[in-house]
Amino acid sequence: MLELINELWFMKRDIVSDEFDRALNRLAKEVPMKIHAYPSGEQCWTWHIPEKWTCHEAYLETLKGKRLIDYADHPLHVVSYSLPFEGVVTRDELLKHLHVHPQLPEAIPFVFKYYERDWGLCAPQTLKDQLKDEAYRVVIRATFEPGNLKVGEVVIPGENQKTFMLVAHLCHPAMVNDDLTGVVVGCEVARRLLSGPKPYYTYRLLILPETIGSIAYLSHHENLIPDMVGGLFLEMLGNDSPHVLQASFQPNSQVDYCLKTAFRGLETQGYIGAYRTIVPNDERQFNSPGVRVPMLSISRVEKPSYPPVPYREYHSSLDTPAIVTQERLEASSRVVLGLLHAWERNQYVVNKFKGEIFCSGYGIWIDYRLNPQGSLRLFEIMERCDGEHTVADIANELDISFQAVWEVISQFLEKDLVWLSRTSHPTTPVRD
Amino acid sequence: MLELINELWFMKRDIVSDEFDRALNRLAKEVPMKIHAYPSGEQCWTWHIPEKWTCHEAYLETLKGKRLIDYADHPLHVVSYSLPFEGVVTRDELLKHLHVHPQLPEAIPFVFKYYERDWGLCAPQTLKDQLKDEAYRVVIRATFEPGNLKVGEVVIPGENQKTFMLVAHLCHPAMVNDDLTGVVVGCEVARRLLSGPKPYYTYRLLILPETIGSIAYLSHHENLIPDMVGGLFLEMLGNDSPHVLQASFQPNSQVDYCLKTAFRGLETQGYIGAYRTIVPNDERQFNSPGVRVPMLSISRVEKPSYPPVPYREYHSSLDTPAIVTQERLEASSRVVLGLLHAWERNQYVVNKFKGEIFCSGYGIWIDYRLNPQGSLRLFEIMERCDGEHTVADIANELDISFQAVWEVISQFLEKDLVWLSRTSHPTTPVRD
Amino acid sequence: MLELINELWFMKRDIVSDEFDRALNRLAKEVPMKIHAYPSGEQCWTWHIPEKWTCHEAYLETLKGKRLIDYADHPLHVVSYSLPFEGVVTRDELLKHLHVHPQLPEAIPFVFKYYERDWGLCAPQTLKDQLKDEAYRVVIRATFEPGNLKVGEVVIPGENQKTFMLVAHLCHPAMVNDDLTGVVVGCEVARRLLSGPKPYYTYRLLILPETIGSIAYLSHHENLIPDMVGGLFLEMLGNDSPHVLQASFQPNSQVDYCLKTAFRGLETQGYIGAYRTIVPNDERQFNSPGVRVPMLSISRVEKPSYPPVPYREYHSSLDTPAIVTQERLEASSRVVLGLLHAWERNQYVVNKFKGEIFCSGYGIWIDYRLNPQGSLRLFEIMERCDGEHTVADIANELDISFQAVWEVISQFLEKDLVWLSRTSHPTTPVRD
Repeated sequence: MLELINELWFMKRDIVSDEFDRALNRLAKEVPMKIHAYPSGEQCWTWHIPEKWTCHEAYLETLKGKRLIDYADHPLHVVSYSLPFEGVVTRDELLKHLHVHPQLPEAIPFVFKYYERDWGLCAPQTLKDQLKDEAYRVVIRATFEPGNLKVGEVVIPGENQKTFMLVAHLCHPAMVNDDLTGVVVGCEVARRLLSGPKPYYTYRLLILPETIGSIAYLSHHENLIPDMVGGLFLEMLGNDSPHVLQASFQPNSQVDYCLKTAFRGLETQGYIGAYRTIVPNDERQFNSPGVRVPMLSISRVEKPSYPPVPYREYHSSLDTPAIVTQERLEASSRVVLGLLHAWERNQYVVNKFKGEIFCSGYGIWIDYRLNPQGSLRLFEIMERCDGEHTVADIANELDISFQAVWEVISQFLEKDLVWLSRTSHPTTPVRD
Repeated sequence: MLELINELWFMKRDIVSDEFDRALNRLAKEVPMKIHAYPSGEQCWTWHIPEKWTCHEAYLETLKGKRLIDYADHPLHVVSYSLPFEGVVTRDELLKHLHVHPQLPEAIPFVFKYYERDWGLCAPQTLKDQLKDEAYRVVIRATFEPGNLKVGEVVIPGENQKTFMLVAHLCHPAMVNDDLTGVVVGCEVARRLLSGPKPYYTYRLLILPETIGSIAYLSHHENLIPDMVGGLFLEMLGNDSPHVLQASFQPNSQVDYCLKTAFRGLETQGYIGAYRTIVPNDERQFNSPGVRVPMLSISRVEKPSYPPVPYREYHSSLDTPAIVTQERLEASSRVVLGLLHAWERNQYVVNKFKGEIFCSGYGIWIDYRLNPQGSLRLFEIMERCDGEHTVADIANELDISFQAVWEVISQFLEKDLVWLSRTSHPTTPVRD
Repeated sequence: MLELINELWFMKRDIVSDEFDRALNRLAKEVPMKIHAYPSGEQCWTWHIPEKWTCHEAYLETLKGKRLIDYADHPLHVVSYSLPFEGVVTRDELLKHLHVHPQLPEAIPFVFKYYERDWGLCAPQTLKDQLKDEAYRVVIRATFEPGNLKVGEVVIPGENQKTFMLVAHLCHPAMVNDDLTGVVVGCEVARRLLSGPKPYYTYRLLILPETIGSIAYLSHHENLIPDMVGGLFLEMLGNDSPHVLQASFQPNSQVDYCLKTAFRGLETQGYIGAYRTIVPNDERQFNSPGVRVPMLSISRVEKPSYPPVPYREYHSSLDTPAIVTQERLEASSRVVLGLLHAWERNQYVVNKFKGEIFCSGYGIWIDYRLNPQGSLRLFEIMERCDGEHTVADIANELDISFQAVWEVISQFLEKDLVWLSRTSHPTTPVRD
């Protein structure tokens, strides 16, 4: 995955741009991908597709012609979707349009003005501090023209058309952890799902520009929305922080119960946060009114001991391949696959037995004198096998991991003591 | 309002009495009022209407004829509904029938014996302490006779026959904060509602003797009870204490959610208490079994740092116009009108949009970098516009004021992004 | 009850054994009892009925013939369901089969190997410490043969076939508090119910070997399970500890609400614990999937300040008549009867009144100035009489005892202000 990152990271992947398209086309060689194109100006729900933006050349010079900033050096030197501008400006005027990073004096910040437009340049604080001349020359040769917003879609067909969505965005130019790591982990997960046995659920991985990409796709696939039973957004998966799973808007959904309890079994160092408390991304569009897909998100973020950014290099020119490792990307892929593996197995557990199971007769007895916790857990799981609890419900009620419950349930399955059902199947005698 | 108080406060407004009727007739000149009459002895649910009581003359004298207490000086000198009595009594016998205030040595207490009858006089503790003679002469010339309990009703017709009840009692003789302030605020609110545009809900203001008045009215208007969707009892609105809103017996009703969240937006100094924890009044009859109208109450009461009375002068001759101000009465009227204004507007918010709204396109974007709380709140409100949440539901879930939610919703309304519905109208795609 | 205990306690009441049967037959003379027999080897749900086990003779001797342990002295000297064994064994080999009590050096432990079989002897730690010889002679003359597992059933017919189950086990040889006290209290309760007026519910008392007895009975009476609306397991009722009531798997069931609130009124020293937190017994089979009877249990156990055994002499030869008293057994019988008495009376309280009751007119007024708590409670109970709350619901909501609620409700009944209904009967006006 790191190789792919090295190849793609420095590209000018602005939301509608030629280099976004090139990056997406390159990814389409890794996994079978359908690429949707939505033309500039088209109305998508309350939004519209922006024009394609291209910056041909841009720089800041002293009046004597000494070049101080050059877009050719780094894509972040120009505000994404900056208006074109050319002329001599006073130092005061320049400073109104020159953006720096609030915490990192050496870094170029990532600034975008997709809708409230203006011209703008970005530079390190250290460079800004040296601007003492009275006037400077600015050149931004940027063009806006009709283009097509592109969304890449990888479909992993399942036995059922009920669909689990995976989403990552690709539109952050010349940065890595946010957002290329989510993209490469998503592709790796899709590749692994495609190479494995046919899953029960259908999976769709979307690679798109943030927000507007989700709006464009969803508004063109309203017929698919009722089939979307859950989802997971992927981002910031290469940096040196613990995994965090952010719940959906519906924290009591089956997807939330399942992914949260499975996450506990996969990542002992990880933690879980409520909706809108960790990092906001495309899961917002999926969780929103009229769509309401319970979509969680996974990323690597320090617990909120840090300043209000998810990691130090966030939205800056320091977000380079140097802060991610192949090992962490692989670990994240394993966690995501582990979550989906749990989701595939999450079904109602229907008892074929009545009363407690004759455990010693079935070879599954745990001596309560030697292992009281293990024995208690065995019975606490057993007594919830009633056709009204899913594996995730049991784990959630007992506040243990999905995997710990599954371990017991799989023994029961092996002994033909329970069966699994996609729908609830109550076995409690009816009392009026 | 204070003028009206000055005119009416010293009247002997005992529960069924000529002066109660006169006070009610005077109020009927302020607002169009229907006056219901319920004859003495009539059975009302488990109650019956008491006789009219008149005290013609009453006094306590030394045997030498020195008058110590005279009903002509103050209506509270005689227990309301005292039996008549005339004779010489020993000091010990007298003291059994002479009531004083437990905390205020200078005050005459308000004592009533509507149902467990006895004769009785009331005096300041300071006077009682001076009674050293062996015997005294008591005269209480009171009569009980058939009369009519009166209930004043002001109707503000709405577009819908669903009715919100406002209730205040008028039966506390020669006292002001409890109960005349609730009455005059109620009349002011009714006057304002009548002079404004036709409301959606019908409003009925009742002015009545406490408890038995509510029972009499309700038992004669059982057909109206199913239309009563909520209510508010008014009392103690002139004294120098913060407003308190007491919840109904159904704290999760729409009326409770709406009035409680609106109250937070209207009264930053105010506080909210559970049912039966602040002051008990007629809202009890409306909340009771077989009626079950969620009726809150509003009054001015110090937080329970005080002795177990709602304010110092409570139920005593010190409850005079001196402890209330016009300014506070007007402030209370504004708060009540503000609560009703919220109630009128409380509807289900139905999204016309799907996904998140394109906020900058609609000019309602809040920059999360400059105002993270404002931005978060905008989205938290937006994502609950799903036809299943009322404005009050959203405010209650987010633990913010009704008005803060309304401010956002009214922007959405203006932009034609949502519509309001009196009934729930879910827009979430149906998933099985 | 203590006489019966003295008569039965030392018997070798192993789960399927002649002495179990003799003990049960003796109990059948105390109360009319049907005795069910389930033959060895029969499949019962996931279990099967064990063989009858008889130990004819067993001892441990030195090679010189000095008898150190003799089954004739105490039934606990041999592991229940020990395999037969005869031979000379090394000291090391012996110690693998010689069980001692982990806390009580003077006591013989109770050890059983019903399913994972082995041969074994039991002795005090003090005796074990003296075993210095290199080899010993062991004799265990035990036989396994087809027999019948016996379950005694006492039926108290009620007006309704809905059934409340009482269960106690009898299979702990030569011990008293666990389990004979539960049996004799159960018989006493059954005797008292039979001698009283016909109850509303049918009651069934089962006396059986632990776990397998419940499984055998339930699997042979599946048709009765839907009628089982609740139950109570009885055990450890003679020792010097406070009563504890263990909730069922469904802590919000009517049975749980009723028994828990009634328990608080019967036993001020007692306490309440969650399911599976006090002592596990046959209530597990009744609460389990496919049966799901909300069965609580009552016993006497110190609050968990003690080592992890319910009482000091638990499962040892020190569990003798010396640690139980007739007085405590009678007190426990009274508590159980009190719980059932509440259960019989637990119905929906339907108001005939509307509004609050005219309390002084009915002679049930409590002066709020003299007894504010009493007055408040009266009204808090009154306002929940709405045909949707049972007596237990009211007690549970107000966090007071069943009896405190019943005291008020019985006044209302006397005054014809409410009636009781076995089904909910809402009286709230319907508002849409």
